Amino acid sequence: MIAMDEQQQAARSWFEALRTRICAAFEAIEREAGSDATFDYLAWTRPPDGDAESGGGGVRGLMKGSVFEKGGVNVSTVGGALQGDFAKTIHGAAENPAFFATGISLVAHMANPHVPAVHMNTRFLATTKRWFGGGADLNPPIPYDEDTADFHAALAAACEANSPPGDYPRFAKWAEDYFWIPHRNVSRGVGGIFYDHLECGDEAAFDATFALTRAVGEAFLASFPAIVRRRMGMAASEADRETMLAYRGRYAEFNLVYDRGTSFGLKTGGNIDAILMSLPPVATWS
Amino acid sequence: MIAMDEQQQAARSWFEALRTRICAAFEAIEREAGSDATFDYLAWTRPPDGDAESGGGGVRGLMKGSVFEKGGVNVSTVGGALQGDFAKTIHGAAENPAFFATGISLVAHMANPHVPAVHMNTRFLATTKRWFGGGADLNPPIPYDEDTADFHAALAAACEANSPPGDYPRFAKWAEDYFWIPHRNVSRGVGGIFYDHLECGDEAAFDATFALTRAVGEAFLASFPAIVRRRMGMAASEADRETMLAYRGRYAEFNLVYDRGTSFGLKTGGNIDAILMSLPPVATWS
Repeated sequence: MIAMDEQQQAARSWFEALRTRICAAFEAIEREAGSDATFDYLAWTRPPDGDAESGGGGVRGLMKGSVFEKGGVNVSTVGGALQGDFAKTIHGAAENPAFFATGISLVAHMANPHVPAVHMNTRFLATTKRWFGGGADLNPPIPYDEDTADFHAALAAACEANSPPGDYPRFAKWAEDYFWIPHRNVSRGVGGIFYDHLECGDEAAFDATFALTRAVGEAFLASFPAIVRRRMGMAASEADRETMLAYRGRYAEFNLVYDRGTSFGLKTGGNIDAILMSLPPVATWS
Repeated sequence: MIAMDEQQQAARSWFEALRTRICAAFEAIEREAGSDATFDYLAWTRPPDGDAESGGGGVRGLMKGSVFEKGGVNVSTVGGALQGDFAKTIHGAAENPAFFATGISLVAHMANPHVPAVHMNTRFLATTKRWFGGGADLNPPIPYDEDTADFHAALAAACEANSPPGDYPRFAKWAEDYFWIPHRNVSRGVGGIFYDHLECGDEAAFDATFALTRAVGEAFLASFPAIVRRRMGMAASEADRETMLAYRGRYAEFNLVYDRGTSFGLKTGGNIDAILMSLPPVATWS
């Protein structure tokens, strides 16, 4: 395990506890649907770069259920030296490539096309600077205004209760810009929030930004399971399922071509199965 | 239509005639399998950049058959100005972003997991320089040494009969390096050839390189349909089909993350459906 200071340990502990609560919430939904699906956990370690501050690893959680066709919840805590030119692209790493990252990342692809897929990720990074980043967005193959409104309202409330640094209008716009598929000129979903580089230059800034990060996690836990319960019993046709599979093709395109987290993972020696866990279980292209 | 000189017209005519012959060969295989599937052709045009030398377009050919689950054969002839920094990454375009490109590009994803998927592409580019590029590689979900050997032998013969510029050992190694999925540390298939920037500084060089290009097309036509006929009647299990769908997931990853042709198309205003035609009809991720 890599050495961690107090802030790093606190962030890591939060992400791991949140993982446990989210996985329990998702498993409870499976129970309600009469399925006994549970998360399988796979631990992985990052090969050290050769000094005491490098290495770490994570745990990939994966559930294939009757409601969650593929639910993946990962936590990881890694550190080391960013390689070559890539270091220059990471905040605060241009002169010194040492980095530390801890976070939670989840993606759920749902069996019923009426239930939205979802992504949520929050993380704490340290280079010569320290910051939190994160986001959550809803990806409904068949969108319902009520679901979109509830999801956004929960995230807006989390931001407003922790402002600054929370700033829902700015983060919602950021998500709109980020979760965009330029080559198709469409959004990947109905948005949510996205934010990055919320700097923690002193302890007060860390406390405020960490509080926002926790509130985003709580907002996710309060809103997404409720949306799932609202939709999971709806009847779906074969055409609905085809709509979903084509929608997932767009999702795979976004993640493989544009997603910064995927690119960061592939270039920092992360675990391939954990990084690409976000890809849908099945997708189609016409 | 964009203005073309004699070399550009000759290259374009060859690629379009080859398209017609390949589509006929693929349709003949469908007939032998008792299917009446045929190619659908969709013409598209590239919006002009604003001067007389820009615009053009292409034709996307798509067949969904019983042997060819998804066979796509595209031709395109486009010209214009490469945008901004992207121009600097293209041979001969750093000082002057004007470009012309004509070529054929095909990908076939097969219904039977014992039949290899295949890719073939040859093209003629003109910036301040002129060159041919291309390649072909075999992607068997379930590999057979005999198929791999036949495919490579046909391409090797085409190179040897047109050497120089043909150079099978170099081009086969180039394909090995190019069709590599670094994040998984695996090849995308069993290789073939890849080459680029075979410069045509004078007429003799154009003639020799164009002859190689034609020979690569003929080698494809002589070898791939024979491999399909050898395998298309083999019985496949559900497990074989699952192997194929997971193999196709790797293929989609390669094309979306690493393929230069895909990236070139997305950044030069090409037709999205034509560019992403290479993606499999269905793919899975575990």
